[in-house]
Amino acid sequence: MMHQKHREKLFSLFDEGQNGVVFIQGSDILYRNETDYEYPFRQESNFWYLTGVNEPECALILDLKTEEYHLFVPKRDAQYAVWHGYVKSLETYQEQYGPDYLHYANEILTVLNKIKPEKVYCLNEADAELIEDLDRGFEADVEALHDALTYCRVLKTDEELDYMRKAAAVNNLAHTEVMKAIKPGMYEYELKALFTKIQYENGLQQDAYNGIFAGGKNSAILHYVENNSQIKDGDLFLLDAGHEYEGYASDITRTYPANGKFTDVQAGVYDAVLAALNTSIEKIEPGIKMEDMHMHAARTIMEGLKDAELVKGAIDDIMENDIFALFFPHGLGHFLGLDTHDVGGYPKGVDRIDRPGIKYLRARRDLQPGMVITIEPGCYFVPALLIPAMEDDNQSQFLNAEKLTKMFEFGGIRIEDNIVVTDDGYENLTDVPKDRKEVEKIIGN
Amino acid sequence: MMHQKHREKLFSLFDEGQNGVVFIQGSDILYRNETDYEYPFRQESNFWYLTGVNEPECALILDLKTEEYHLFVPKRDAQYAVWHGYVKSLETYQEQYGPDYLHYANEILTVLNKIKPEKVYCLNEADAELIEDLDRGFEADVEALHDALTYCRVLKTDEELDYMRKAAAVNNLAHTEVMKAIKPGMYEYELKALFTKIQYENGLQQDAYNGIFAGGKNSAILHYVENNSQIKDGDLFLLDAGHEYEGYASDITRTYPANGKFTDVQAGVYDAVLAALNTSIEKIEPGIKMEDMHMHAARTIMEGLKDAELVKGAIDDIMENDIFALFFPHGLGHFLGLDTHDVGGYPKGVDRIDRPGIKYLRARRDLQPGMVITIEPGCYFVPALLIPAMEDDNQSQFLNAEKLTKMFEFGGIRIEDNIVVTDDGYENLTDVPKDRKEVEKIIGN
Repeated sequence: MMHQKHREKLFSLFDEGQNGVVFIQGSDILYRNETDYEYPFRQESNFWYLTGVNEPECALILDLKTEEYHLFVPKRDAQYAVWHGYVKSLETYQEQYGPDYLHYANEILTVLNKIKPEKVYCLNEADAELIEDLDRGFEADVEALHDALTYCRVLKTDEELDYMRKAAAVNNLAHTEVMKAIKPGMYEYELKALFTKIQYENGLQQDAYNGIFAGGKNSAILHYVENNSQIKDGDLFLLDAGHEYEGYASDITRTYPANGKFTDVQAGVYDAVLAALNTSIEKIEPGIKMEDMHMHAARTIMEGLKDAELVKGAIDDIMENDIFALFFPHGLGHFLGLDTHDVGGYPKGVDRIDRPGIKYLRARRDLQPGMVITIEPGCYFVPALLIPAMEDDNQSQFLNAEKLTKMFEFGGIRIEDNIVVTDDGYENLTDVPKDRKEVEKIIGN
Repeated sequence: MMHQKHREKLFSLFDEGQNGVVFIQGSDILYRNETDYEYPFRQESNFWYLTGVNEPECALILDLKTEEYHLFVPKRDAQYAVWHGYVKSLETYQEQYGPDYLHYANEILTVLNKIKPEKVYCLNEADAELIEDLDRGFEADVEALHDALTYCRVLKTDEELDYMRKAAAVNNLAHTEVMKAIKPGMYEYELKALFTKIQYENGLQQDAYNGIFAGGKNSAILHYVENNSQIKDGDLFLLDAGHEYEGYASDITRTYPANGKFTDVQAGVYDAVLAALNTSIEKIEPGIKMEDMHMHAARTIMEGLKDAELVKGAIDDIMENDIFALFFPHGLGHFLGLDTHDVGGYPKGVDRIDRPGIKYLRARRDLQPGMVITIEPGCYFVPALLIPAMEDDNQSQFLNAEKLTKMFEFGGIRIEDNIVVTDDGYENLTDVPKDRKEVEKIIGN
C-alpha cells in the first residue's frame, strides 16, 4: 500500500494522459573486484521507494497514460534452486508485490512495443542507453524522473515516518547501550561490536553508512572509519553510526568522555555544541531555511569558544572572517530517508554557497512538514586547519594560539539528532542522552 | 618483508632481465548506486599480496629488469585534511610500505617513459586500456601476470600461514561461542549478532564473505543470506561464515540442533557428513587429487544415507547413477587465502568435470605442501531436486520416497574445516567442536 501511494504521488507529477512511461532497472548484486565476494544486496533507493522490492535483477515500467505498474522479475533456471533452495513462482511475486502486470525480465521490449511510448523517463544514462539501444525510436529522458522522484521522496508520508520511528527506536537503544558500556582501554572496534550486535539482534542487518567509532584525536577526523585504536583515559569518544529499518536510515552522533567525566575544557566545548544543537532544533518549523540555522549554530559554537577563551574578538568579526569554518567545517545537516544523505538537499536552481564553512552544507531550502533532517553541529581541533590559520595575518588575531596549541590531541565533538518537520514545529526522533550531566551519569552505567 | 618475498617470488617467474614491467592499479572506494554510501574499503587481493597496501587510489609498477618496486600514492589537496584529519606525507608512506621508489599517482607515465618497457603485464582489461590509451607504443599483456600471481598465491609462505592461523583462532572462537549461546526461539540474526561481535571485538572488521546463518529448512539453501527467520525447537542450525585477518580468510561451517539434542534422523545424516569430512581430511597429503577426495566424500555420505534407509540399492550403482548429486550438489572444497574462493583451483589446461555432483567442484589439482583448502561435505534435502528425481524412472529406484518426503523440512547439514597441506600430511586450522556428543555437550553451554 505504501509503495502504491508512492507511485500515485509520482504519477500526479506528470502531465495527465501523456504517452510516456517510467523505466527503471533495479540493482544487481555487486561483487568485489574480480572475485565472487558479494556485497549484501541493497536495492536502489528510488526503485525500492516505488516498489518495495528488495531483491536483485528486477525492473519496472510505469505507464503514465493508464497509471499501470508493470514489474519485471528474473526468470531462474532449475539450477538456481540448488543454490537458493527454490525458484519463486510468478504467483508468489504477484502476492508479495501486487503489480498490475507481472512479467519476466525478457519481456521488457514486448511491453514497450505494446505501449509504444513517445517518451521513456529514466533515472540514469545506463537505463537510457538500454532504451536507445533497442532502436525502436523511443526517446529517453534522464532529467524529469530524477527531479520528480526527488520531489516525492523529500516529503515523507505518515507510513514512511513510522518506518523512520522504528529505525530510530533501535538506533536509540544501540547508542545508549554503547554509552553505558564504554571504558577507557577499550578498542574502538569493541564498541562497534556492541553497537552492531544490538542492531542485528533487532533485525537491522544493513548499515545506513560506514560508521565512525572514534576515540581521542580520531574524533576530529570527519571521515574516520578505521575504528582500530585504543581509547585512553581522558579521551573523548565520538560515535556516528546507524542502521536502516526497511531501507529507512537513522543517523545519530554522540560524543562523550570514555571515563565518564568531562574535563573543564571538554565541558566547555561540549556545552557550546550542545547549545548549537538544541537552539537550532528549537527553531525548526515550516519555512525556516537550513542556511540560516547553519549560521546560527556556527555563531553559537563561536560564542562558546569565546567563553572558553579559545577564540577572541567580537563575535560579529569572528563570523565575518569565517573563523567558524576552522572549527565547524561541515554542514549543519542533511535530509534523511532511504539514503542517509537523502535526496532533495538542493532544489533546482539553488546552488551551494561559495563560502568557507558553509559550502559543504548538504541541504539548502525552506523546511516543510514531512521533511526529515539531521541537525549535527560539531567543533573540531584539526592541526592541519589551525596551524595555517595561526600563521595567517588576518585569522590569527581571532585565535588564542597558546590555548589552541594545547588542543591538538583533543579531537572533536559532534552531536546529532534526527528531526521531522511538522505542521507546527518538529518531532525529535532521537532519544539518546545528550545533556552533559545525564551523559556522565549513564557512562559505565 | 612478507610482501617483498611475494614480489621476489613473482620476479622469479618472469624471464630474467627482460624489458618489461608489471602494472597494477589498486582498488578505489566503491559506492552504492548513485549515492555517497561507501562500502568499507578492501584492497584488490593481488595488489595487497604484492604490497601490503590496504588503502585506495594506489598503483604499482614492478620493473622486471631491475626488480625495482615503484609505489604510486594519491596526491591529496588541503581540503582532504578536513575530512580525513591529515594528509599522509611521502615520508610516512615510505616508512610504512618501503618501496624502492615512491611517487604520486600522476607520475605513472613519467616512470613508464623512463623505463620504456617492451611489455606491460596487467591483471585486467581496465589497466591494459589505460596503458594502451597512453599511446606510447607500450604493449599490454593481460594473461601472463594473472597466471603468475595465481601460481604465487596458491602456495602459501610460512608468514601467510601464520596470518591464516590468526584468522582461524578468532573464527574458531566465534563459532564456538555461537554454539554455546544458541537456543530455540532465537532469530538467525541474533546469532549473526553474536558472531560478528566476537570478530569485531578481536579486531576482525572485514567479513570474508556474506555469511550464512540458517535455521531449519533454510539450512538446505546453499546461498541463504537473509538470516531473518526464527529458529524452532527441533530445528538444525547451519552457520557458514568467517572474517579476514589482514586480508586472509577463514571459512568454517558447523551444523547442529538448536535445542542441543540430535534426533535419530539428524544424527544419522550428521554422522554420514562427519565421516565424509574426517576420512577426507585423513587422506590429505601431497599428491592427492581433489576430485578423488570429492568422490570419496560423496560415497561416504551415500553409505550413511543407505544406513538410514533414505537411499537404497548397491552403493556402486548409486554412485554410477549420480544419485549423490541430489544430496551433495556442491564441491568438496576450494582454495582459501586472500580470497575465500581463492585463486588456483583450476590450473591452465584443466577443465571442470561435466558430471552432475562434481561440476561445481572449485579446485581440481594435485595438492602440494603450502596449499590451504577447505573440506566441506554436505547433505541436503531440497524438494526442488528430490521431487523430479522421485518421478524419474531411473533415479527413483534408488530413493526411499516415503522417507524422503518426510525430510522436506529437514534442511541440510554441512561441516567444513580449513586445512593446510604439509610435507607429510596436513594441519587442521579449524578447532570448533564437531564430534556429535561433544557438540551436544556444548550447546546452550
